Order: sequence, then C-alpha cells, then structure tokens
Amino acid sequence: MDPRVREHADIIVSHSVELEEGDDVVIHAPPVAEDLVVALYERIGDVGANPISLFGSDRAQRAYLKARDEFETPEHTLAMVKEADVHIAIRANRNVTETGDVDPETNAAYSKAVMPVREERLSKRWCLTQYPAPANAQLAEMSTAGYEDFVWDAVLKDWEEQRKHQEQLVEILDPAEEVRIVSGDTTDLTMSIDGNPTKNDYGEHNMPGGEVFTAPQPDSVNGEVLFDKPLYHQGREVENVYLEFEDGVVVDHSATKNEEVLTEVLNTDENARRLGELGIGMNRDIDRFTYNMLFDEKMGDTVHMAVGRAYEDTVGKDNERNDSAVHVDMIVDMAEESRIEVDGETVQKNGCFIFEDGFEE
Amino acid sequence: MDPRVREHADIIVSHSVELEEGDDVVIHAPPVAEDLVVALYERIGDVGANPISLFGSDRAQRAYLKARDEFETPEHTLAMVKEADVHIAIRANRNVTETGDVDPETNAAYSKAVMPVREERLSKRWCLTQYPAPANAQLAEMSTAGYEDFVWDAVLKDWEEQRKHQEQLVEILDPAEEVRIVSGDTTDLTMSIDGNPTKNDYGEHNMPGGEVFTAPQPDSVNGEVLFDKPLYHQGREVENVYLEFEDGVVVDHSATKNEEVLTEVLNTDENARRLGELGIGMNRDIDRFTYNMLFDEKMGDTVHMAVGRAYEDTVGKDNERNDSAVHVDMIVDMAEESRIEVDGETVQKNGCFIFEDGFEE
Repeated sequence: MDPRVREHADIIVSHSVELEEGDDVVIHAPPVAEDLVVALYERIGDVGANPISLFGSDRAQRAYLKARDEFETPEHTLAMVKEADVHIAIRANRNVTETGDVDPETNAAYSKAVMPVREERLSKRWCLTQYPAPANAQLAEMSTAGYEDFVWDAVLKDWEEQRKHQEQLVEILDPAEEVRIVSGDTTDLTMSIDGNPTKNDYGEHNMPGGEVFTAPQPDSVNGEVLFDKPLYHQGREVENVYLEFEDGVVVDHSATKNEEVLTEVLNTDENARRLGELGIGMNRDIDRFTYNMLFDEKMGDTVHMAVGRAYEDTVGKDNERNDSAVHVDMIVDMAEESRIEVDGETVQKNGCFIFEDGFEE
Repeated sequence: MDPRVREHADIIVSHSVELEEGDDVVIHAPPVAEDLVVALYERIGDVGANPISLFGSDRAQRAYLKARDEFETPEHTLAMVKEADVHIAIRANRNVTETGDVDPETNAAYSKAVMPVREERLSKRWCLTQYPAPANAQLAEMSTAGYEDFVWDAVLKDWEEQRKHQEQLVEILDPAEEVRIVSGDTTDLTMSIDGNPTKNDYGEHNMPGGEVFTAPQPDSVNGEVLFDKPLYHQGREVENVYLEFEDGVVVDHSATKNEEVLTEVLNTDENARRLGELGIGMNRDIDRFTYNMLFDEKMGDTVHMAVGRAYEDTVGKDNERNDSAVHVDMIVDMAEESRIEVDGETVQKNGCFIFEDGFEE
C-alpha cells in the first residue's frame, strides 16, 4: 500500500473527525477505494471505535434508480445514521459517467427521499474525501500516478498553517454586509451576507479543505453570473451555466451543454432557485482544475456558489436559512479581470488578496 | 453480465426472502460480487423495496481485528439491523485466507460482541448465498468457469421439486426420538432429537439449500465422531476434527492440522462444547466438495453437525436450546460403510435413503 494512504487515513481520523474511543463510525466507500478503507480500519481499531462500511456501487445505484421513479426514506439507513457519531464518505470512481443515463427527475426524487438521512449525517462529525482512482485521473486528464501526487499534495499538508492563512479573509467577511463578485463582462452579482457567520474550512468536513464560505441572505442576490468552469453533476457535464437573479431568485438560466440537467436541479423544489452558499477557494496546492468539485472549489483564484441548501452553521440565528433537497456548487474563475468587493472595498483582484504580497487595487 | 447472475438474484428475491414492496433490505457483499449486487438492486427496484449495501472487505476486517483485542457491540449496526425487514449476505472472496493471521481468541471476542447483531438479523427474513469468485474456485481446485457452472447448477433449480424430495426425510425425523450416526470404525454417535422440529431447507435461508436439519437435545449426545472432510474456519483449514461426547459435552478433541483453531472455537463459551445442529445433506446437484460449508453440508451422502448455537426453529418449545456465540459446522462422509439409524431402524445406508431406489438394509 502506498504509504500516503495511511497518512491520508491518519489525517481524517486525527484531524478531520477527531475520532474518539467508543465512537460509532460509518464509512461510505466504493470498492476501488478499498486501500483507504483498510487504512481507516487500522486507525479506527487503534482508537477503539466501531466501524461499519457501506458499499458505494454506482452500478448498483444506477440499476436501482432505473427501475423506479418513486422513493421513500430508507428507515434502516436513517436508524443507523442516527445512532452513529461519525461519517466518513470516500469518493472514487471506476467510471465517472456511471449514472449518466439516469433521468434527472428520478435523481431529484431520490435526493428528496433521502434528505432526512443526509441532514442527520450532517448534524454529526463528518468528512468527505477523495481517493485517487484511475477514472478520476482520466476525468482530470492526468496519469493515475500524476493524479495520486495531486490528490495527496492537496491532502497531506499543514492544516494549522492553512487555517491561519484563511483566517485573514474570515476576519474581513464575518462582520461584512454586502459582497460583490465581478468577472469580465459576464459576471456582476451582489448579495447580502449580513449577520451570517463566515466559516474557515481547514480540512474538517472536506479533505482536502481550503476555502472560506458563508451563506447569502436568500432574498438578497441580484445580478448575473456565468460559471465558466464546467460542472459535473450526476455523471453529466454541464457547460457555461448562466444564472440571472432578481431578489434572490433565479429568473433566467441557460447552459451550452446538458442544460436540462441544470433545469432539473433548479426545479427540485422552491429553494433550489436560490443561493445557499458563497465560497472562496484558498488552497494554493490545488493548482489545476480536475472537474471534481471537492478540489476545484478549493482552488485559489476562484469563487463558487451553490444553489439550494445553506449549511446551518453559515446562517445567523435571526436570519432565514435556505433549505432544499439539493446543494449544487458552481465555479467562477477569478484569475483575470475579476474582483471581489466587500462593503465597497476591493479585497481580491485577479486572484490576489488584499493581505497578500502583490495586491493592488 | 452472465445471464445466470440475474436468475440468481431473481431466485433470492422471489423465492428465498419473498421480497415485498416497502421492505427495508440490507445486503452484505464483498466488492468481487458486485455483479450480483447490481442484479439484486434491479429486482429490489422492480419490487419497490429500499436497499442498503455493506462493504464486505476481509482486508479491512483483518486490519481492524489486528489492531484490537476487545470489542463492543456496534450500536449503529444494531439499529440498522433492527429496522430492516430482510438481510441478504453474499459470500465471495478474493483470497480465502485473508483473515488467516488473526488470533483465534480475537475472532472469538469479536464474534461475542456482534452476537446481538447476528441474533437480530436471524430473527428477520434472511438469505446467505455465494457468488462464484476466482478465489473460491481456487479453493475448490476448479477453473473459474467450471466453478461458475457448479455454483449456478446448485442454485438455479426447481426448489419445489427439491422440497418434496426432502420432505420424505422430514417425515421420518420429525416424530423420532433417537438418531445414531455410524461411519467406518471412527464415528458412532447417538443423540436425542425428541420434541425438536425437523426443518426442510429448500433454499430459503441458504441459497443453495438442500438439507434437512434439527437440533440434538443439548445433554443427549454420546459417542465419538471423526469429521473426515476438512473444515475451513476463519481462513484456516482444520483437518480430521475428532470429538468425543459424554452427556452432550465434548470431553476430548483433536485435529491433525490447526488444532488450536478448534480449541478456540470450543473455548468460546460454555455451550460451544455442545452440539447445536444435526443436518443431512440432500442436494444431489452438489456433486463434489469445494471446501465451502454452504455447499459441502448440502451434498448428498453426508451428515454435518455444528458445535454451538442451535437455531430457534429447531428447538421444541419445552426443550432446552443450546445458545452460544459460535455455530461451526463439520462434515462426515456417509458414502461408504455408513448408516443413519432412527429409533433403531436404518434409514440411510452408504448414502442411499430408505425412500430411494437401491436402498438395502
């Protein structure tokens, strides 16, 4: 086994979920990530916690979804998740388009049915990570060995150092009221984050971490945005997503490829047409796009926004939280002709922050 | 996918567990059996039931067991099993000796800790089956294609026909008091089955099925038995298990290979030294030993006995049930110089039953 697999497992157990003796742990993993499951079981055994692993088979999931169009909440899964203390989800694929021929409406219906399971899981200690499988390397247009280096460089780092770097942006956003995102002549969006806490992601819920994020007030978003980085959703690539907002709601949308996938997402429920997250990528070890949101959204020089559900810890107690069955992130490249304004002041220009060397207004 | 995989899934869903709409189903499967999981998900979707799959990784299990020597009941697993209606366990290996270097005491301690999970599972509709993986073919000293034929010949059959054939033996054993098993000069064992129901296994809990079985009264077993077919337990081959019983308890034991594995089994708890099952193999499509108890114990011309736990449905309500954390089956070849006597009458001689052509007392 590559020694980095054990380091990866150790960071998840010690840093991300801070596993303790007696914890009941649920791991969700596809077969191709078995090495990481083995390494996690070693560490879980060392700590004295109790593991169970779910078999993440895209092929089986596809077969099930193709056979049905109505779903109910699986009570046995919910019972397990309720009793568990920690959830570790490992992403890795043998074929990233395995579920690409499932009807988007079916996906949305299933997503709604399992919402109580997801919410329960998110209320515990949890971590989502990536194992560098060959199909994910292929999606990134990289060799498997090159992709392994990429993944483990982004994961195996000094997270306390990263936390300090990101805290500088948290201190700007946390007390702020209005944020404006401008990129080229295709994106100019304003939103209020007044009263909503800004969170510092240094590798707890996401491994790798490396972003700063908060929630817009649901009614406050106005303007237009072109997400110029492709989105992979349920095995389909959606290109050039364009959204126009009025008083928080998407009033116009388009995409140059697989637009119907976008339409289905927005039609999932009422709040799928509102933003639930504004995030700013700050992990400079992620130095290329790999068509994988877990990495892409953390990349420096990018901003991402999600339609749908807002995370509870990003909404102030007197503010409204956008709730939805979906949470779909999309990315804007901020490397050139771009700026982030906070309460009228430019805090990032062409990817360089106000607190970094080389910044010029 | 081999079309027999879908037939296999269909028999499990329709015949073995009689799946119904709304059932919560738990599948336990190793990665190498993914095809059967996919086929099951198709059928589960057709029926309108709710699946969850557990990742059966021997490598991970070994890593966990090597890291610990004390275990507690996993409450999250127990909660899931309690809420489920149906359990389907698929056996298949990439390496049948994967857990062979785990300390037998550790295995016994783990087995005790998960006993509540197992009991809960056995109280529901459940089925245990085999997927024909290459490592299992290797253990059977067969090609993978040859082993696939063997497994699917044993599985894909007319189970109603089989039920009728076996019912003839059930009608002999069910009202009987004493059973005597004689084989060569190494096995001569008597036991009372008075008041204990005899069950007809025609592929419900085990797929393939093909045996008739009951429980001895725990104090009634006397004599000696040499199990001349090798036993695979926790990745280790135990050869020539010899047991001597007095008033139901094993008072002497030996094996010519890996005797310490046998000793650990017998020392698991007090009732691990008593018999919990007497079974008679009647599936004539299983025509060779494959070192796999799920098949070997169903083979015609054999008798098997298990030390440890007796199944609840094989114990009369006024009789004592042998309870234990273990249930380990061992096989006696009855093809030559052998007979089964029931209340003094020979009902099987050299593998031929009294109700079959060619029988002679």
